[in-house]
Amino acid sequence: MDRLSLNQITTKTWSLREAVAGCAEAGVGWIGLWRDKVAEVGVAEAARLVRSHGLRVSSLCRGGFFTGVTPEGAPVDGVADTRQAIEDAARLGTDVLVLVVGGVANRDLPGSRRRVAEAVDQLAPVALRHGVRLGLEPLHPIQCAERSVLSTLDQAVAIAEPYPPEAVGVVVDEFHVWWDPGIAESIPRAAGRIVGFHVCDQLVPLTDPLLARALPGAGPIDHRTLRACVDAAGYTGPIEVEVFNADLWQRPGAEVLAQVISSYRNHVVGVPGG
Amino acid sequence: MDRLSLNQITTKTWSLREAVAGCAEAGVGWIGLWRDKVAEVGVAEAARLVRSHGLRVSSLCRGGFFTGVTPEGAPVDGVADTRQAIEDAARLGTDVLVLVVGGVANRDLPGSRRRVAEAVDQLAPVALRHGVRLGLEPLHPIQCAERSVLSTLDQAVAIAEPYPPEAVGVVVDEFHVWWDPGIAESIPRAAGRIVGFHVCDQLVPLTDPLLARALPGAGPIDHRTLRACVDAAGYTGPIEVEVFNADLWQRPGAEVLAQVISSYRNHVVGVPGG
Repeated sequence: MDRLSLNQITTKTWSLREAVAGCAEAGVGWIGLWRDKVAEVGVAEAARLVRSHGLRVSSLCRGGFFTGVTPEGAPVDGVADTRQAIEDAARLGTDVLVLVVGGVANRDLPGSRRRVAEAVDQLAPVALRHGVRLGLEPLHPIQCAERSVLSTLDQAVAIAEPYPPEAVGVVVDEFHVWWDPGIAESIPRAAGRIVGFHVCDQLVPLTDPLLARALPGAGPIDHRTLRACVDAAGYTGPIEVEVFNADLWQRPGAEVLAQVISSYRNHVVGVPGG
Repeated sequence: MDRLSLNQITTKTWSLREAVAGCAEAGVGWIGLWRDKVAEVGVAEAARLVRSHGLRVSSLCRGGFFTGVTPEGAPVDGVADTRQAIEDAARLGTDVLVLVVGGVANRDLPGSRRRVAEAVDQLAPVALRHGVRLGLEPLHPIQCAERSVLSTLDQAVAIAEPYPPEAVGVVVDEFHVWWDPGIAESIPRAAGRIVGFHVCDQLVPLTDPLLARALPGAGPIDHRTLRACVDAAGYTGPIEVEVFNADLWQRPGAEVLAQVISSYRNHVVGVPGG
């Protein structure tokens, strides 16, 4: 239980204030913050709230969009935005900034991927200076067009490798990588660079591909095997339960958090037959 | 134009009879048939209709579901069903049977993949005997849970490799593989085994992941680069335009087919700047 972290998106109806209080109440020691929720109270107040409840911040979501392509379509300066996010992460007391790198620009997938590598090259020294590790998160291939031209863990590791692990790491999210036929080899390759492990399941049957996620145990993902693999790669940090699910988002935060805790106990850390 | 094939799913409202007549009328020489449409008139009558209109059948969709997991959930005997489909393909005069291998059984992805390899091992001699090549089609990873534990072309090639190319090949479908960071290397590895090339685009923004497809040119896929890659691998067979799209399925078949032809001309075979 001491590694469980509530990623704030899972209890989307909760404000930051409510989420922090809810975690403290439920005995969850870690929280993964989202920038839009932080913005509601401001970075300084968010940092104060987290501290005053005795919590630690597992990560800040998110910087990135280096290709300029977002689901909203409006152009963004991903590098400038990520500089700000690095500063915010440091002030919030977390050493991990999750990056969603952006979708395909101009039907040019190789070119879009080069832009990501170039942005990381600019930002790695900034991150290092602030004591924040950039967490390259490969997203499920279904998000390639709109959100992330990094689709596999191997790609993320390849972009991270030229930099010290204190500057650039990778985030392993079960929803995004579970299908990958090479994942049992990719996770060991990421050893020393894993800065986050996100757990959730996939909804079956599929509907909206962004929201097609569920609490661990509700879908086809073999959580114990994936966790064993991440453990064997030496990752000992917090494990975020991060679930995008429209039904969960209709229910009271405390009820959702109780389910997060039980699904984490039963499917992520539980020992089969134990 | 002599390589264009209409995959029947693209004009879903058309019966087999209408689709065959529509292709003949529009000067499209190839058609990719679906078993449910064939079943409406029976295999013998379907074969007669195709022949009498001077068409050739690029492929029959589909056999497979060897893991027993289908979107409908009902258990199926994929091997028995595929034996029947091989016979049907031969009677319809096509030498390609497309395989969709089935989703994850019991949260056991490696075990499910082994079942696919075992089924192919049983069916390869049957296919060879009938002069039909099994076309292993990797599906987009978003279909892994429900439809296909083969998610990459490399996986399909690895399963095909022990068998003669006259028995087991692979199908390259743009929607399913375009995001793959290794695709420019995987297609050359498939040389000599490519038994089908399916073109379409991805809808952006995404909605239903099964129907999130569009005519070539409407989305982020770089068709010319993919086609050049498939050409370089020596594939000279028919190119099927296969689009699952709810809006297209509301429109008259002839209108859809006209758009198929123009999108194929402009985005698949057209020469940039030419």
